Amino acid sequence: MYFNELSMTDIEKKDEHFMREALKEAHYALSRDEVPIGAIVVLNERIVARAHNLTEALNDATAHAEMQALTAAANTIGGKYLDKCTLYVTVEPCPMCASAAYWTHLGRLVYGTIDEKRGYQNIERGLLHPRTEVKGGVLKDECSALMVNFFKNKRQKLR
Amino acid sequence: MYFNELSMTDIEKKDEHFMREALKEAHYALSRDEVPIGAIVVLNERIVARAHNLTEALNDATAHAEMQALTAAANTIGGKYLDKCTLYVTVEPCPMCASAAYWTHLGRLVYGTIDEKRGYQNIERGLLHPRTEVKGGVLKDECSALMVNFFKNKRQKLR
Repeated sequence: MYFNELSMTDIEKKDEHFMREALKEAHYALSRDEVPIGAIVVLNERIVARAHNLTEALNDATAHAEMQALTAAANTIGGKYLDKCTLYVTVEPCPMCASAAYWTHLGRLVYGTIDEKRGYQNIERGLLHPRTEVKGGVLKDECSALMVNFFKNKRQKLR
Repeated sequence: MYFNELSMTDIEKKDEHFMREALKEAHYALSRDEVPIGAIVVLNERIVARAHNLTEALNDATAHAEMQALTAAANTIGGKYLDKCTLYVTVEPCPMCASAAYWTHLGRLVYGTIDEKRGYQNIERGLLHPRTEVKGGVLKDECSALMVNFFKNKRQKLR
């Protein structure tokens, strides 16, 4: 029991550590006036990809943080399957990104805050690969606050 | 009535014409030993993007023909919304590509053959943008034969 508890705490610490790295990416996105979402891919405790949302900069509605992180990770490790990798993302993926994760056979998904409108879980739970382990709510408040403030500011500018 | 019929025939002719262009892309994919799927994006009867599946060449499980065609089209027209565009694709899109089309607010989707296993319609009909018009079955037999033969050959090689 003691070791199990210790190991759980270790995993939680690691998840928070890597979610902080994803949050850094989300802050980069914010500084470029992009929807503030960041993503990291980790293999054997090493970051193999980092990315943030670039839909405005690239003029590409599909340039989500996760899409870029998954592609970059495959490039880094030189293989298209990410079954030994964990994707950390500050906001629950949309169906596009969840399905992209499916095609990569992603090993583990860790997200910060949920996306009530377009999160993949609202739409279809069967989108992820059946072997992908999922954990939500890591640094939820920070991940969520970034999004809430971003859209609050956008709405104020539109007044 | 006469004009309506004429106009329907015209649309069908155009759809077949552009699906042949998508089929050319699928044949390029085949010649590179990629899963033979091709895609074209058309705006005002002009092809603004052409792409084929490159998952093997790019070592990227997300490099589907549609993902590349949508991104290329946005680059060509210099805007991230494709609400005036038609995506022609030889095989029914998967949930990733259907959701990518959602984010682009795609105007119209025309596909050749259905994908019984991972087609977006089997999984979730709500993935496309509500304004996207859909038409399936254009040059269905050619589009389907390419896929069936490809996987038949793959299986024979594995014996």
